[in-house]
Amino acid sequence: MNVSRKSFASDNNSGVHPAILQAIATANEGHAIAYGDDPITARAVEKLREHFGEEIDAYFVYGGTGANVLGLKQIARPHHSIICPETAHIHNDECGAPEHYTGCKLLTVPSNDGKLTVEGVQRHLHGFGFEHHSQPKVISISQATELGTVYTPEEIRALADLAHRHGMLLHMDGARLCNAAAALDAGLREITTGAGVDVLSFGGAKNGLLIGECVIFFRKELSADFKFTRKQGMQLMSKMRFVAAQYEAYLSGDLCLRLAKRANRTAGSLAAEVEKIPEIQITQPVQSNAVFAILPKEAIEELQRQFFFYVWNEETSEVRWMTSFDTNGDDVMDFVQCIRIVMNKYLR
Amino acid sequence: MNVSRKSFASDNNSGVHPAILQAIATANEGHAIAYGDDPITARAVEKLREHFGEEIDAYFVYGGTGANVLGLKQIARPHHSIICPETAHIHNDECGAPEHYTGCKLLTVPSNDGKLTVEGVQRHLHGFGFEHHSQPKVISISQATELGTVYTPEEIRALADLAHRHGMLLHMDGARLCNAAAALDAGLREITTGAGVDVLSFGGAKNGLLIGECVIFFRKELSADFKFTRKQGMQLMSKMRFVAAQYEAYLSGDLCLRLAKRANRTAGSLAAEVEKIPEIQITQPVQSNAVFAILPKEAIEELQRQFFFYVWNEETSEVRWMTSFDTNGDDVMDFVQCIRIVMNKYLR
Amino acid sequence: MNVSRKSFASDNNSGVHPAILQAIATANEGHAIAYGDDPITARAVEKLREHFGEEIDAYFVYGGTGANVLGLKQIARPHHSIICPETAHIHNDECGAPEHYTGCKLLTVPSNDGKLTVEGVQRHLHGFGFEHHSQPKVISISQATELGTVYTPEEIRALADLAHRHGMLLHMDGARLCNAAAALDAGLREITTGAGVDVLSFGGAKNGLLIGECVIFFRKELSADFKFTRKQGMQLMSKMRFVAAQYEAYLSGDLCLRLAKRANRTAGSLAAEVEKIPEIQITQPVQSNAVFAILPKEAIEELQRQFFFYVWNEETSEVRWMTSFDTNGDDVMDFVQCIRIVMNKYLR
Amino acid sequence: MNVSRKSFASDNNSGVHPAILQAIATANEGHAIAYGDDPITARAVEKLREHFGEEIDAYFVYGGTGANVLGLKQIARPHHSIICPETAHIHNDECGAPEHYTGCKLLTVPSNDGKLTVEGVQRHLHGFGFEHHSQPKVISISQATELGTVYTPEEIRALADLAHRHGMLLHMDGARLCNAAAALDAGLREITTGAGVDVLSFGGAKNGLLIGECVIFFRKELSADFKFTRKQGMQLMSKMRFVAAQYEAYLSGDLCLRLAKRANRTAGSLAAEVEKIPEIQITQPVQSNAVFAILPKEAIEELQRQFFFYVWNEETSEVRWMTSFDTNGDDVMDFVQCIRIVMNKYLR
Repeated sequence: MNVSRKSFASDNNSGVHPAILQAIATANEGHAIAYGDDPITARAVEKLREHFGEEIDAYFVYGGTGANVLGLKQIARPHHSIICPETAHIHNDECGAPEHYTGCKLLTVPSNDGKLTVEGVQRHLHGFGFEHHSQPKVISISQATELGTVYTPEEIRALADLAHRHGMLLHMDGARLCNAAAALDAGLREITTGAGVDVLSFGGAKNGLLIGECVIFFRKELSADFKFTRKQGMQLMSKMRFVAAQYEAYLSGDLCLRLAKRANRTAGSLAAEVEKIPEIQITQPVQSNAVFAILPKEAIEELQRQFFFYVWNEETSEVRWMTSFDTNGDDVMDFVQCIRIVMNKYLR
Repeated sequence: MNVSRKSFASDNNSGVHPAILQAIATANEGHAIAYGDDPITARAVEKLREHFGEEIDAYFVYGGTGANVLGLKQIARPHHSIICPETAHIHNDECGAPEHYTGCKLLTVPSNDGKLTVEGVQRHLHGFGFEHHSQPKVISISQATELGTVYTPEEIRALADLAHRHGMLLHMDGARLCNAAAALDAGLREITTGAGVDVLSFGGAKNGLLIGECVIFFRKELSADFKFTRKQGMQLMSKMRFVAAQYEAYLSGDLCLRLAKRANRTAGSLAAEVEKIPEIQITQPVQSNAVFAILPKEAIEELQRQFFFYVWNEETSEVRWMTSFDTNGDDVMDFVQCIRIVMNKYLR
Repeated sequence: MNVSRKSFASDNNSGVHPAILQAIATANEGHAIAYGDDPITARAVEKLREHFGEEIDAYFVYGGTGANVLGLKQIARPHHSIICPETAHIHNDECGAPEHYTGCKLLTVPSNDGKLTVEGVQRHLHGFGFEHHSQPKVISISQATELGTVYTPEEIRALADLAHRHGMLLHMDGARLCNAAAALDAGLREITTGAGVDVLSFGGAKNGLLIGECVIFFRKELSADFKFTRKQGMQLMSKMRFVAAQYEAYLSGDLCLRLAKRANRTAGSLAAEVEKIPEIQITQPVQSNAVFAILPKEAIEELQRQFFFYVWNEETSEVRWMTSFDTNGDDVMDFVQCIRIVMNKYLR
Repeated sequence: MNVSRKSFASDNNSGVHPAILQAIATANEGHAIAYGDDPITARAVEKLREHFGEEIDAYFVYGGTGANVLGLKQIARPHHSIICPETAHIHNDECGAPEHYTGCKLLTVPSNDGKLTVEGVQRHLHGFGFEHHSQPKVISISQATELGTVYTPEEIRALADLAHRHGMLLHMDGARLCNAAAALDAGLREITTGAGVDVLSFGGAKNGLLIGECVIFFRKELSADFKFTRKQGMQLMSKMRFVAAQYEAYLSGDLCLRLAKRANRTAGSLAAEVEKIPEIQITQPVQSNAVFAILPKEAIEELQRQFFFYVWNEETSEVRWMTSFDTNGDDVMDFVQCIRIVMNKYLR
């Protein structure tokens, strides 16, 4: 298997967009004060304000797990609970970092499409004031979800209102926020603070950045002392300008949305082609850059010999295919062609 | 103050060495499996083995605090104590991350030169087996130290033997390991595992890398399950190849030592020039890339208006000046010239 | 409401059995070395060995949450997960202490009767070796369960075998272990280590003790360094003899089983009487000292004005009634009489 | 060695005062709601208010380590530091519980007499606002100290003022608070909140209680959500009435002060007698119930064969002798007689 062939395994198997790499090179001029007290970081934060609003408080960190964990740690004490769908990245893919480093309990809600609903959350909203019970404090959602689906602003607002009615906060894991924005044709602000989100992990590594994530607090009273939490949380980069420069470029001229749109579009193409193969069942609406599909186990194995990708659910024989900012039409056609050959062979 | 003027504030105010930047660009070819399961990471680990020995187990992480904390967490349980000099980075500069994230107690030893001695450590070696007392488990040293001094291999060996005699382990914070190696004209292996070190944080960001640090275990039985600790510890980079590529370049053709030598040499030049100014007292032997000096408070303030650097000790009016891989003779001369003018003005 | 009237709210609303109080008074002779290095503690451990086997390692702690958390902390590292029924005390009633103080993730299994099944556990047994996934390490069950049901030795053995096949361990919350033993007419050893349990929280406060709980490791290699974990875990009592004396008395002449039998018997009587009231539905098999029943919301409220007890499930109008070692036939008759009057009034 | 002979090892080697034991027996009447929602707990809190003031918020916990750790956890976040003398119980005798369970750094101040001074604390009061530095937040003192010395109200006030000027808080470990009050002939309020203390661990187990400690917040805004921290912190006792009843008795008719006075008085007698032996050097002012003395190593060993006590400092051959509420004049005379015989033998 040629690993460097563009895979459909994950959007973080792709590399760095040339404009991002150029921004890093450009930032490499002389000395700059470390830890973010430099002009590039200041400019990047300004760019964030353009997109998310003047009142934000934004902090760059190394990666997505760090962004989620420290953002949650900032708004929850250890006796609190965090409610998320059972498909959440914070529940499945961070090796228990949220529990270990926030001290909080995670409460999960079953979900077929990766989304939380008001009804689903409500069954965990009890025991307030009862000292034996972890106190519900945060609702956490991913936009786009781990299943490639996208919350509408109204759906987010409903969850935000539910949270706020109970003195709780709404956290968003935005590792693929731009894919969601591109899918909805909405602005970043509209689907975050505009819909009631309180704290956001705003990622870029799945959409053309080399490294870096940003924790954004939409109200300044939420971020008090966060700089200490970031440093103690091992997420303060010394040569900060090189993350900031990426974000500055990423947010300029809507590069972030253009890249996301491209990834979404090729996912759509892939889905459209795959749908023509009757033996393959697409299991989730293809709203961002993921395609989930059920196909025969033997076909999966044969296909994996040629393309690297992950089986999502062994039991149901469901796979996940993801497109990246650099996936193009030819890549999709190659892959689809390969799928067809394998399916024909298998079905024959 | 022109911040981008090469400062003598810190070796992480410098940028990225061109060969490192080139390595990043070269690594940006097509897709690669995320999280380190890629050929560049494999090659970088091979390079580490060339320098540190075949038997190592090495893990890339984001930064120095993460490397120290997770390396220590791996070898100590929360009821253990970690003995370090009171000048240690893990004690002063990581915002309590070691305590919070390992659960261990830090026990400090007074030190004039940033180094631990056998005698200094021994006063903490009691209470073994007594359940009310945090059990001494790790001795942690920095090489080079935070005061720019360098342990000889024999000094390290003495501490390693002391540790091992008590069932303890020796941890080394090697944020400036190459500066120490350059100073001693020794190999990296010789001053680490060759001298009895068990676990090492091997940094590069203070010597020309953009980002990244490496936790190296010198015996495989020490590293069991560390991959989970790294992921849970928010230090697993998705696009790992871009850190690995830096290390591969850094360790090729002894780039790491050449850069460190350069920084050490300019620190030596700076010290030699400053020594000629009788009103300035150099307070530490200049063995690596740091110069510590006492000068009049008013002179410090005037000088800081032109060059950014840190006061190390307000009380004693002591400053720290650091050189970087990119500091050159002209930078030193400019700075010395400025020091002379300020001192003359102040002394007049 | 007369609170000191024997309530059916919880078995820890009862007081201390006279023999236990006498043992405390008897232990109050002269001085004894603190923290457990005294002859009474030695004798109590000997009693534990009589019941649980020679090879145990036993540690007294203050209470049930401490016993569960520290027992689990001893056998799991933070990157591990702990699988329990969604009704577990460790999940619902310890305010997130297990997550905060072990660092582990809790994974829950839906359960109608408070018990785990092999099938229920198996859906969490995946992702072994995958660093993004909390590694399954412990299965935790309560005996008797929080719903008053009791595992047979065969059911425990099946879960133990499942755990051990996967390199995992079986933990038992035995806050009501004696009630289970009495229900099964089995020995304490038979339903713990005899059935494959690795670590046990052995409580007594719900069965006539004043305070105290015991963490029992059934294989000595599991308990290394636990004395430090207990002390650091704030669970080492200074005047240990006064907990040990209780356990010595509790385990002498099978007092523990006699008291449990009494509580179970009155629960049985209560259930038998309540079953005669057709409008009340008993929802769980009454195997130990709890009766779960659904009755009209208005009846619950009226009844609560006279007897203190808890609503288990607001939605289904289900209550929990518990009997204690000191509940007698008259108490049951009083309570049943009251229930009848209330139900008649409500139904009229 | 007859262990039950009244030892001079520790004040928690003594038993329970009869009035306390009686209070426990009296509390054992019928049922009471668990976890503190009972009339005895209400009365005990009322008694605390009589002694400490109406505005307190008080919480019973199991023991001293729990009281200290949870009190500190309540007022400090993990990025904070806690300043204490190097002799502090929280630093030496709690197996690192404060670091592990609060996440904070402990900063120690050298101390010859167990007390903190304003000057000693001040050297740690820097780095405010600097994110690399644990932020100083709490000053913690023990009253009486671990060396048996006692702070005057003025000394406490000076430390409180220092703390408050820096936005910090003053915590007091009052495991032997009554001994200090007795020594000063002062009220409990006068030497705590009256002198500026913000949070207190108020112990009794070293002065005649069986078990239990109380965390007292002197301003209600400091205690928000503490009930969750206590429960999650494994320090919520189910049968709370039995701790509360002890405190009610302890605080009635000044029993607590009478017992402390007795212990102090016998320590004074012991010191007076020992001072007559010229070869023994008393090393600390005997202000409460401890006597620290240097005597020849061989004499220590011989004496320990007859009386159990601890060597405080192996190097200096210093021992600690403590008296308890139940130590009487005859005990002192026996012990002194034994010391004399041993010293004579050794000196001959």
